[in-house]
Amino acid sequence: MIIRDKPRAWELAFAMRGSVLPHIALPLLGVVALAGVMVLLDHHFGVLPHIEGIPFTVFGIALSLFLSFRNNAAYDRWWEARKLWGGLLADLRSLARELEVFAPDQALRHRILLQSLAFLHLHRRQLRRLTDDAEAQSRAPELLADPHPPCSALNLINADLAQAYASGQIDGFGARSLTARLASIALAQAGCERIAGTPLPFVYSLLIYRTTYLFCLLLPMALVGSSGWLTPLFVGIVAYVFLGLAEVTEELSHPFGSTLNALPLDAICRAAEISLAPHLGQEAPKPLQPNDFHLS
Amino acid sequence: MIIRDKPRAWELAFAMRGSVLPHIALPLLGVVALAGVMVLLDHHFGVLPHIEGIPFTVFGIALSLFLSFRNNAAYDRWWEARKLWGGLLADLRSLARELEVFAPDQALRHRILLQSLAFLHLHRRQLRRLTDDAEAQSRAPELLADPHPPCSALNLINADLAQAYASGQIDGFGARSLTARLASIALAQAGCERIAGTPLPFVYSLLIYRTTYLFCLLLPMALVGSSGWLTPLFVGIVAYVFLGLAEVTEELSHPFGSTLNALPLDAICRAAEISLAPHLGQEAPKPLQPNDFHLS
Amino acid sequence: MIIRDKPRAWELAFAMRGSVLPHIALPLLGVVALAGVMVLLDHHFGVLPHIEGIPFTVFGIALSLFLSFRNNAAYDRWWEARKLWGGLLADLRSLARELEVFAPDQALRHRILLQSLAFLHLHRRQLRRLTDDAEAQSRAPELLADPHPPCSALNLINADLAQAYASGQIDGFGARSLTARLASIALAQAGCERIAGTPLPFVYSLLIYRTTYLFCLLLPMALVGSSGWLTPLFVGIVAYVFLGLAEVTEELSHPFGSTLNALPLDAICRAAEISLAPHLGQEAPKPLQPNDFHLS
Amino acid sequence: MIIRDKPRAWELAFAMRGSVLPHIALPLLGVVALAGVMVLLDHHFGVLPHIEGIPFTVFGIALSLFLSFRNNAAYDRWWEARKLWGGLLADLRSLARELEVFAPDQALRHRILLQSLAFLHLHRRQLRRLTDDAEAQSRAPELLADPHPPCSALNLINADLAQAYASGQIDGFGARSLTARLASIALAQAGCERIAGTPLPFVYSLLIYRTTYLFCLLLPMALVGSSGWLTPLFVGIVAYVFLGLAEVTEELSHPFGSTLNALPLDAICRAAEISLAPHLGQEAPKPLQPNDFHLS
Amino acid sequence: MIIRDKPRAWELAFAMRGSVLPHIALPLLGVVALAGVMVLLDHHFGVLPHIEGIPFTVFGIALSLFLSFRNNAAYDRWWEARKLWGGLLADLRSLARELEVFAPDQALRHRILLQSLAFLHLHRRQLRRLTDDAEAQSRAPELLADPHPPCSALNLINADLAQAYASGQIDGFGARSLTARLASIALAQAGCERIAGTPLPFVYSLLIYRTTYLFCLLLPMALVGSSGWLTPLFVGIVAYVFLGLAEVTEELSHPFGSTLNALPLDAICRAAEISLAPHLGQEAPKPLQPNDFHLS
Repeated sequence: MIIRDKPRAWELAFAMRGSVLPHIALPLLGVVALAGVMVLLDHHFGVLPHIEGIPFTVFGIALSLFLSFRNNAAYDRWWEARKLWGGLLADLRSLARELEVFAPDQALRHRILLQSLAFLHLHRRQLRRLTDDAEAQSRAPELLADPHPPCSALNLINADLAQAYASGQIDGFGARSLTARLASIALAQAGCERIAGTPLPFVYSLLIYRTTYLFCLLLPMALVGSSGWLTPLFVGIVAYVFLGLAEVTEELSHPFGSTLNALPLDAICRAAEISLAPHLGQEAPKPLQPNDFHLS
Repeated sequence: MIIRDKPRAWELAFAMRGSVLPHIALPLLGVVALAGVMVLLDHHFGVLPHIEGIPFTVFGIALSLFLSFRNNAAYDRWWEARKLWGGLLADLRSLARELEVFAPDQALRHRILLQSLAFLHLHRRQLRRLTDDAEAQSRAPELLADPHPPCSALNLINADLAQAYASGQIDGFGARSLTARLASIALAQAGCERIAGTPLPFVYSLLIYRTTYLFCLLLPMALVGSSGWLTPLFVGIVAYVFLGLAEVTEELSHPFGSTLNALPLDAICRAAEISLAPHLGQEAPKPLQPNDFHLS
Repeated sequence: MIIRDKPRAWELAFAMRGSVLPHIALPLLGVVALAGVMVLLDHHFGVLPHIEGIPFTVFGIALSLFLSFRNNAAYDRWWEARKLWGGLLADLRSLARELEVFAPDQALRHRILLQSLAFLHLHRRQLRRLTDDAEAQSRAPELLADPHPPCSALNLINADLAQAYASGQIDGFGARSLTARLASIALAQAGCERIAGTPLPFVYSLLIYRTTYLFCLLLPMALVGSSGWLTPLFVGIVAYVFLGLAEVTEELSHPFGSTLNALPLDAICRAAEISLAPHLGQEAPKPLQPNDFHLS
Repeated sequence: MIIRDKPRAWELAFAMRGSVLPHIALPLLGVVALAGVMVLLDHHFGVLPHIEGIPFTVFGIALSLFLSFRNNAAYDRWWEARKLWGGLLADLRSLARELEVFAPDQALRHRILLQSLAFLHLHRRQLRRLTDDAEAQSRAPELLADPHPPCSALNLINADLAQAYASGQIDGFGARSLTARLASIALAQAGCERIAGTPLPFVYSLLIYRTTYLFCLLLPMALVGSSGWLTPLFVGIVAYVFLGLAEVTEELSHPFGSTLNALPLDAICRAAEISLAPHLGQEAPKPLQPNDFHLS
Repeated sequence: MIIRDKPRAWELAFAMRGSVLPHIALPLLGVVALAGVMVLLDHHFGVLPHIEGIPFTVFGIALSLFLSFRNNAAYDRWWEARKLWGGLLADLRSLARELEVFAPDQALRHRILLQSLAFLHLHRRQLRRLTDDAEAQSRAPELLADPHPPCSALNLINADLAQAYASGQIDGFGARSLTARLASIALAQAGCERIAGTPLPFVYSLLIYRTTYLFCLLLPMALVGSSGWLTPLFVGIVAYVFLGLAEVTEELSHPFGSTLNALPLDAICRAAEISLAPHLGQEAPKPLQPNDFHLS
């Protein structure tokens, strides 16, 4: 995630960090160059049909509405993912507190809390499709080969609870509270897996990129009559807006990816470690800081 | 569901897998051909009235807004259906964990978990309106003739719980937890049945297809004056966008259907089997893999 | 509710079942006829001012956005109502299951379940404002004269629970579970009453119908210059879209009404009877089938 | 709230009850008169610049989108407020039922239920900022001077519960159920206070009224060229749509106000009295009826 | 937050309090001045290309939709933040009530309630990034140096609960209720931290400001042909709408900031103090009043 204040005037012109420009530079240049060639051909050979703007207006508005839908859907995925991780953080804090109330045995409490942090890192590792991750490696080396490592971590916590309930270490009220907390964690986990595993319907990507390119490629016919040599500039601006939005949308719809705009899972995991530190009798680590405006 | 990366340039031009083009090819050709005939008639006999664009702009914007609404509604159904299945997966995992805490008898636990997997397959079978389904057949052959097979599976689980509570095998806390879990499963189940049984209001389909065709059929009158022989091309593009979106919308609004963009219920059922395997003392099966980009 | 597949080509042209056309035929004809008269007057006496399209574009877009808002609000009401009834169905199923776990006395269970079906029919009767309803009549004849019959049915269930708890037939865990289930039913009930009793603000209806008619009545001035004798046709199409959408919106905003697009409450009540039959030791009735595509 | 059927043709033309026209008549006349003066000046002295429509189209669409946002936000507030009161009604009914199950002492039950009705009236009084209200006066005269009367009413109920739990009149299950019910009431109460105390950001009101007036004042320059003496009529229509929507929005965003479109809190309080009457052993009062289509 | 009635006519023209005008005055002047220079150059040297409006219409509509999305997202953040604080207020009231029922020891109750007020002030201090805050200083001086002061306050409450449960001062029902209440507080707290710590994706800010400025800078080319010397005025109006909306959006997306439109956290903290006063046996303080229309 990019952590940066409102862009100031000069930043607007030059900021590249967090911009989509680098990602769409190539197709943008292609579209502009093609528009230039079309104007050139029209100027010398008059072969380009000059179309009035009405169909382009309707086409452009339909495309805008469609991009706008996709943008909403992508942002909703990104924000829902953030909500789920915020919920996980709250769940871990509440787990620690409920353990303190219901589980008198400190060793049990510490074992469960450490396991819950291992779960969080394993969950992050799975969502980001990391193959080697130092934190996951060091916290739960024996779970990495399991079919579903984060679930295994939760199963271990659950086994501890079951054993403690069977042995009378925690009472019925505690068992109810703590299993409900675990179920709440499992629900957030399944929500994240849903977002990570179910992309926006592919058919939208096809439809949107096809129509965006079609629009940009045909636009010179509508502009050349009035704009002349400025046509490539206008085509470039329109293509920048539409392709830029399509690209942003693509990035945000994968909130657990490795792009600059993806969610700062490392920082949230660290926040969880800070929150659990007092319950583990440890000193809290420092919060993660953005690196060149980027919080990983 | 189509699992595929962002389409690259050449894929944009040629990808057919997951595209709506094959589904709308016929009406698209019809609309384009008709536009061609209209231009021809206009060219030779001058019988086509040339209309200015304003009514088409308003008509086109109204139609875009309407398609946009239907698209939102269809996507919401698709995404809500996916959420409900994600919730079912989380519920099954939590059921397994809560059983471990509250039900000391392993045989009871295994019986309930196997039944819950049978429920999931029966539920999938019902939503997809399958008549013969190998998984459902092998897991619950005796339930298939019931008036409502998935409900029967849940009733069996419930009877086990009732019997265990009556005999003191599970305590009051366990009975509360486990019946609440069952109720949560029943709520997600009813949600899926709601989506499967209540299509988008038919009146929308009529209105939207009627106005879309009307628009495409009348559009040549607005374009022929300025676009001439290119008219069929532009009509084709506009029809592609509008009919394509209407078709996508139609598919997504049936998230449990058999189209390429329908939800991967087989894969989610498999994910549930993987998650429950350790609780059943079984080896986890492999996750389902996409076949030619398609996850069933 | 209309249950029908995606309309095919010839159905698009002729389907009347589920269409709004019959409901708006009269005002549609009126608007078209007036447009014809205006063109006639303009042709013979030249009295009609010819207006350029810009104000109509802005007006048309504002009106489209407004209709689009109302459509969203109406559809949300319709879908929320459907969700509430889906929730009621799930609640009744869970009530039956929880009774089996927590209430050992079969006579008590049957009494409560029969009463809950009576509640459902009384609730449907109230929402649809029926005065005589065979099901309600036969299931709860003594409650029909009460100030609030569905509440009376729930009160009877509750009195049974209170008596059973006082006499020790159900324990504290059961009392908690079953009163919570009843509260969940009461919440869905109040939600339905809210939708049935609180129409969309009347001021919207006035504003939207007034502006729609104004738009259609003034439109000939914008079109007559370019469209000539086709003006009534275009006015008719625009009026069809706008009046049609306003009418659909009106119907869907009353999801418990008696229109073809209203919710199939009879069918959902039947689904509840099917679900509760095994718990009552009865044979399940058949599901309701659509009659001429209409499910009541 | 206005309770009225879909407006019929003649009502559309003349209905004033529930219309916004009376509220915006003055500014509407002002804008139309100014447009008339501008046309006059243009006609005689030719001093009015004639602007092409493009900037007005963009301006008009931006303004429409903005009004549409504000309308959505206002309607959401209105509908959320209605949902909260629907929830309060369901909570009161469930409170009565849970009391019957968990509190054997009838005197305690009656005291709490009467207090809960007092709470509802005090809550209504606070939301509507009434200083003297007969119902609140007669039901809880001693609470009116408290810093927060509705909270005081809930505190009294809570004190009764605390005392009953301490004395063993209600058991732990009952205490859990009843305090949870009270918390649910408190949540709905805080939601209503939030809506009543937090208006839509003032900056929106400024921005929207400023741009709406600017648009209406500049519009004659775009219309005078083509519409001539009809300009004031068109300006009037556009101003009617935009100012009307802004006014509706203003009213709905204050759902607890005293406008005709505000929520019928009196009627909902009466519905609560009807629902609690059988639990109090009283005869139910009659439901409130609309007065000249208005339900207060 | 600005607390002010609907602006009246003269206020519309002159109100500055709560307006965005002061924040965008500089760029607004810059854009207008540049437009003036461009018209001047065009008038004297004819160097400005005159572009037809179609590309600007499409550009303007795309930009409007985009601004509209960002506005929705920002308002949702603001309103969600307000909801979370409303929920915190309700939670604190319910905490006080549940303590009265479940915790017989008054000293314990008072200690927890005072700590919960300290939590609220610490939470406010953290969200607003205040370094010195009189309330937080006086209520919890020993927590200010902790890694996460609000969490520390909740941990102290939790330690009290754990100790009381261990010593039998509160029973299992109370422990369940009170830890659930604490978890609900922690969830709202994490929600606020999420909003405060996760700005709207920076890429949107870049894209939106870049395209807004591009639009305003190019607009003179579309207007100069028809509007002549009025071009700077129109450019100014369009820039006012677009930059104004972008600025409003920027402010509302930081609901815990120090701008005039930020949430009135001080007033909500005071409302909590008023609500808890009777439970602490204290006299309630006065509610905060707006200062020059501004409630802090």
